[in-house]
Amino acid sequence: MAEVKINFAKGNGLVPVIVQDYQSRDVLMVAYMNEEAWEKTKATGKAHYYSRSRKGPWFKGEESGNFQEVKDAFIDCDNDTILIQVNQVGGAACHEGFRSCFFRKRSEGEWNVIGERIFDPKEVYKK
Amino acid sequence: MAEVKINFAKGNGLVPVIVQDYQSRDVLMVAYMNEEAWEKTKATGKAHYYSRSRKGPWFKGEESGNFQEVKDAFIDCDNDTILIQVNQVGGAACHEGFRSCFFRKRSEGEWNVIGERIFDPKEVYKK
Repeated sequence: MAEVKINFAKGNGLVPVIVQDYQSRDVLMVAYMNEEAWEKTKATGKAHYYSRSRKGPWFKGEESGNFQEVKDAFIDCDNDTILIQVNQVGGAACHEGFRSCFFRKRSEGEWNVIGERIFDPKEVYKK
Repeated sequence: MAEVKINFAKGNGLVPVIVQDYQSRDVLMVAYMNEEAWEKTKATGKAHYYSRSRKGPWFKGEESGNFQEVKDAFIDCDNDTILIQVNQVGGAACHEGFRSCFFRKRSEGEWNVIGERIFDPKEVYKK
């Protein structure tokens, strides 16, 4: 089959990355990678992203210790989105301390917290 | 709790939407919604998106019959990404006929097709 290349150009150098727990299959978060982050992820086996807010490299877990060990990676039909299945060290992907960033569910016209809080952000991120 | 509003402004009017099968928990695809698509999705219970390539509304399944019935919706911690869990009518979300758009998996430095083809795109999309 023809060589498949991730299309970073389409998103001005960035592709969205869906992060799924490899065991529970919960969707944990969505982040972005540039080519450098993808190369570092491949080289280390741990998820590296590009932080759009900080405009720079973001090694997930560097501060919190909650690394993501990449078990498998998939690419979509348009070559512009990546799905990774990870072992979420520490059990929480969200910087607010929840297992998943998608901890609020829509019901009766409102978003209600349904996620379980694993850690207290104040304890983990000492600013 | 304070009212939560989807932040469409951050992505120039669009938010990424992760689409997950509500039973198998497979990640099926990623698409984008503007506010109009979100309102139509809420009103009809079927996923509506904004097509970035066509620059207009996209009612998923309108052509193929492969609608997505929305079972649940979640919002992420930054209010800028939506996760929906759907019943994928027809069993295939990808326009190439695969169950999931993420039908290629990384192994030994290559992306290999691992997905199951449900339909033949040539039969479904008569152009």
